[in-house]
Amino acid sequence: MLAQDEEMMFTDARIDSIMYQVTFNPKTREGDIIANLSLVDKKDLDETLEIFRQVMYSGLSVCSYVKLFDEGDIFSGLTIPAGKAGITTVCSITIDGVLLKSGIPAKPIFGGIVQVKDRVPVRFTDSIRYECTTIDPLEVLMSQDLTSVREMMRTGSGKILANLREVPMAAKDDVDRTINRLLTAGFYGILEVGEPNSPVLGADVSRDHMGIIITGGTNPMCAAQEAGIPIITKAIKGVLDFHEMKKLA
Amino acid sequence: MLAQDEEMMFTDARIDSIMYQVTFNPKTREGDIIANLSLVDKKDLDETLEIFRQVMYSGLSVCSYVKLFDEGDIFSGLTIPAGKAGITTVCSITIDGVLLKSGIPAKPIFGGIVQVKDRVPVRFTDSIRYECTTIDPLEVLMSQDLTSVREMMRTGSGKILANLREVPMAAKDDVDRTINRLLTAGFYGILEVGEPNSPVLGADVSRDHMGIIITGGTNPMCAAQEAGIPIITKAIKGVLDFHEMKKLA
Repeated sequence: MLAQDEEMMFTDARIDSIMYQVTFNPKTREGDIIANLSLVDKKDLDETLEIFRQVMYSGLSVCSYVKLFDEGDIFSGLTIPAGKAGITTVCSITIDGVLLKSGIPAKPIFGGIVQVKDRVPVRFTDSIRYECTTIDPLEVLMSQDLTSVREMMRTGSGKILANLREVPMAAKDDVDRTINRLLTAGFYGILEVGEPNSPVLGADVSRDHMGIIITGGTNPMCAAQEAGIPIITKAIKGVLDFHEMKKLA
Repeated sequence: MLAQDEEMMFTDARIDSIMYQVTFNPKTREGDIIANLSLVDKKDLDETLEIFRQVMYSGLSVCSYVKLFDEGDIFSGLTIPAGKAGITTVCSITIDGVLLKSGIPAKPIFGGIVQVKDRVPVRFTDSIRYECTTIDPLEVLMSQDLTSVREMMRTGSGKILANLREVPMAAKDDVDRTINRLLTAGFYGILEVGEPNSPVLGADVSRDHMGIIITGGTNPMCAAQEAGIPIITKAIKGVLDFHEMKKLA
């Protein structure tokens, strides 16, 4: 939400600004990543982290690193309220930042919901384009009871959050190299890399581009919510030194 | 959500199709309107209707008419589940349909959140454009705890749902006439009619057009949710004969 004198800022502009702040280098595993922040009641923290661990172990997150914040701590201008614990996780837009800092013009297009059947992602069933919304799509979609992350983990079929970005097909080799480095660094959340000039999971891609689909960094939060834990999530909240994060799964 | 073989349909296309089905004539008060459907537990029905009545009485809805559905009843392909009651209310896109059927090309642009101060609408604080989302903006925004409809009713200041459409400025007289007819027919939800070529509540309008802001038909559902009543809402669910609806407030 906006302060009294702020103007409406569309998510693509917000993403542009924060991608620019990413300094994470997958080769050295050093630098700043973009983090989502979730708030839960302190009494729910252990149960929440166990769910996060399971979701991350299933590969339905960007990577398995978290940093915890206690009440009174401040992350990116937000003070963790009394009685609450803050959990930061890596936001998928971090990967766009890494591509950008490798010289590849990655353009996040939309956030949406991907239907998975027998562990194979089938297609997008819903989407909201970043350039047309002031609120992060993965933040609004997670509160809509449209996901079934826990069912997906249990049965192999369900609906998860993911987002699409486009890169120029001319950058294909560089993209493959960067993605491999990210995989080696423990960033397993790349769901699908499309062929040049071809739709990915039913989503159209601009001419001379290819689409890359990454699992939403907010899938663990969906699973916690599906389990009945009250959780508030601010997607794309701020940047964080990767060194301060710990592996959870 | 989509069936297995359905394609993603953006909300503006869905709106186009359903606007076309509006036959409501404000002069005769006859014909079909577009309805939102909400589901609540039967035990919560009376309390929910009392909240709806208050919101409608405060003018924070399109009009004050509802139609109730019992468990087992079917509305627009959806069977009301056991233990639930269905409440249909008039969707603000009805007004676009009425403008269309008066020969005015009304184009719904976005749904968003309007900040109100001392009973005066100040500006949009958030928005999602219809052409870029497969899920209705007012449906996703109402579940985001971004609204404060009850506070607005109590104190005169708060955040409510509203949406913006554009009409050509050449149609100004016809628009004024149609809106007056709608007001006479009990459709009080018109929040603001902008000047030609001027922003309305901080939102830009296309050249040679004027903006019309209408309160969200889902504000009563926001208020119920804010009061802690579990409520599921499907915005723009189907069409309904206005004669079947009853005045609530």
